[in-house]
Amino acid sequence: MSKHKKSALQENEGVSSSEIASDSAIQSFKSKRKKELDINQLTAALLNKNTTALSQAITLVESQNLKHFEKANSLINACLPHANKSIRIGITGVPGVGKSTFIEAFGKHLSAAGKRIAVLAIDPSSSITKGSILGDKTRMEALVKDPNVFIRPSASGDSLGGVARKTRESIILCEAAGFDVIIIETVGVGQSETTVHSMVDFFLLLKLPGAGDELQGIKRGIIEMADLIAINKADGDNFQKAKRAQIDFNNALHHYPKKSSEWQPKTTVCSALKNEGIDEIWKAILDYVHITSENNYFSEKRHEQNKFWLLQTIEAQLKSEFFNKPVIQEALKIQLKLLETNKTTPFAAAEYLLKLRD
Amino acid sequence: MSKHKKSALQENEGVSSSEIASDSAIQSFKSKRKKELDINQLTAALLNKNTTALSQAITLVESQNLKHFEKANSLINACLPHANKSIRIGITGVPGVGKSTFIEAFGKHLSAAGKRIAVLAIDPSSSITKGSILGDKTRMEALVKDPNVFIRPSASGDSLGGVARKTRESIILCEAAGFDVIIIETVGVGQSETTVHSMVDFFLLLKLPGAGDELQGIKRGIIEMADLIAINKADGDNFQKAKRAQIDFNNALHHYPKKSSEWQPKTTVCSALKNEGIDEIWKAILDYVHITSENNYFSEKRHEQNKFWLLQTIEAQLKSEFFNKPVIQEALKIQLKLLETNKTTPFAAAEYLLKLRD
Repeated sequence: MSKHKKSALQENEGVSSSEIASDSAIQSFKSKRKKELDINQLTAALLNKNTTALSQAITLVESQNLKHFEKANSLINACLPHANKSIRIGITGVPGVGKSTFIEAFGKHLSAAGKRIAVLAIDPSSSITKGSILGDKTRMEALVKDPNVFIRPSASGDSLGGVARKTRESIILCEAAGFDVIIIETVGVGQSETTVHSMVDFFLLLKLPGAGDELQGIKRGIIEMADLIAINKADGDNFQKAKRAQIDFNNALHHYPKKSSEWQPKTTVCSALKNEGIDEIWKAILDYVHITSENNYFSEKRHEQNKFWLLQTIEAQLKSEFFNKPVIQEALKIQLKLLETNKTTPFAAAEYLLKLRD
Repeated sequence: MSKHKKSALQENEGVSSSEIASDSAIQSFKSKRKKELDINQLTAALLNKNTTALSQAITLVESQNLKHFEKANSLINACLPHANKSIRIGITGVPGVGKSTFIEAFGKHLSAAGKRIAVLAIDPSSSITKGSILGDKTRMEALVKDPNVFIRPSASGDSLGGVARKTRESIILCEAAGFDVIIIETVGVGQSETTVHSMVDFFLLLKLPGAGDELQGIKRGIIEMADLIAINKADGDNFQKAKRAQIDFNNALHHYPKKSSEWQPKTTVCSALKNEGIDEIWKAILDYVHITSENNYFSEKRHEQNKFWLLQTIEAQLKSEFFNKPVIQEALKIQLKLLETNKTTPFAAAEYLLKLRD
């Protein structure tokens, strides 16, 4: 945690003084920020778009320390009325597709258009690798220095559910701190795309130029989730290849059922390196927001996501309570053996285990 | 239940006498079958391939009467060592695709090849419609009279999970009664395909000849589940249309990732009405069984399905216990309202509800 705090302080050294509000609560926050946290002062500073306060708030929300839980909850409750006003964009793609370069070009484009952008990341492996994603800030040098941009390394946690919760709460904090666009990057490991998809408004899949055969390698369901497929690195010799890949993907999209958003998923080519095709992507996102705001899908989707996470959290807790009981763990092993040798049925085994708990 | 029992007795009037074993237990079963059930006698008759006993056994397993539960469990336990030796085939397709005609042609083909075939059905709507599927036996006139064939209308139940459990237990009973091929038909309503897919070895999707646009109308994930897509009604003027549809579906299949079974999903055309293309489908299924038995996928998949149903049953029970508590139902309504107006987060709401339970 202290690592996060330090990097959060470092990364905001370049914050312009105009961003720092002058009322006394915030002055007091600044002088006290190395002592004990005052939630009211922290909230006031955050709502005043102070990114140091935002960093500290996220650190608090990410804390595993039990005595921080209540503080984190009051902070989030104070932020909630100011949240929900951004566009949340999920970005995924295999390693090597150029996600960092893309986010850098995309972020600069939005910043130049006067938008404030927060970049978060979901990396279910970060608890093991200690945060590979976005950890190396040098990959996004120009962005880090941009006062309109806030970059936060992946939350770590012992489960994807835990990481997801922290990321969703961080989104609320970023929105309350006045960010217009929240980008959630995923490494594409395990279930991370599904998790990101369930917390964003728009899902962007980055692809490399390549033959149609490459389609075979795509993880199940990823194309189905995409609102836009952007074929990156479409420059020089790769341009024609990228255009051919675009045709393939258009074909593939044609084979998927219509989405209830009335949005027809699109494909595009771009070169993040040469800064080409970036504006088209942003325009497609604005089109999406326009269409889905008109037909109410935008807010309905957020409500559905909230409901999903409510039920998801309860179910995860019920399951973990049950399966973490030592008596169940022991008995489950035996029942699975019996099942494998066809000496019981799944239903008889389930009933046995449920009775054992009572 | 009495309806089931009656129809089960009726449908087996045509059973050849050679099928009825002569040992005393079974004689005793026959004379007692309208009085109280003796599980040992019923089991002996069932293992002797007596289809009247099989019908009665399924009725027992389907019974909602609590005093039948223990008997049903001992019956299943006695059958388990004799189960697991069939090929389980799931068949789905929209109404009008000709499922009944197909199953009739397919069943006759298998019966002529000396196989014994059981046809079960999953219809989650049957609790409302009181069993539309397979209910009208006249749709399969020739099959009903075939001594190698056992047809059972859809189990009814108040939930898809309940229906699924009964169907899975019926599969065990049919296998113990010596059936070589178990066909599970689904009406394609709600989650029924996913449910059937999770209890069969091979999943057959029936389609109508039609333009590629029709692909748009397919429910998410159905094509991905199919091991074989058969375009039915490929006769007369429709034959060329069916061949064109086959090309479209082949294209669509190409866009899906490889399956871990090493089986490459195939497409074929057939006319159940004219009895054309049926043998090719059976050969494809035998190919599948051969390939997946060699690479062990066949039995691994059954183990995975067993594990899935074990965990699924426990999870469903944990959830229903929680969400059926009146105090939770009341509080959930309020929390969902707060969530919709952004006055709480999914996680805070979940924690609140979980605390309320304790």
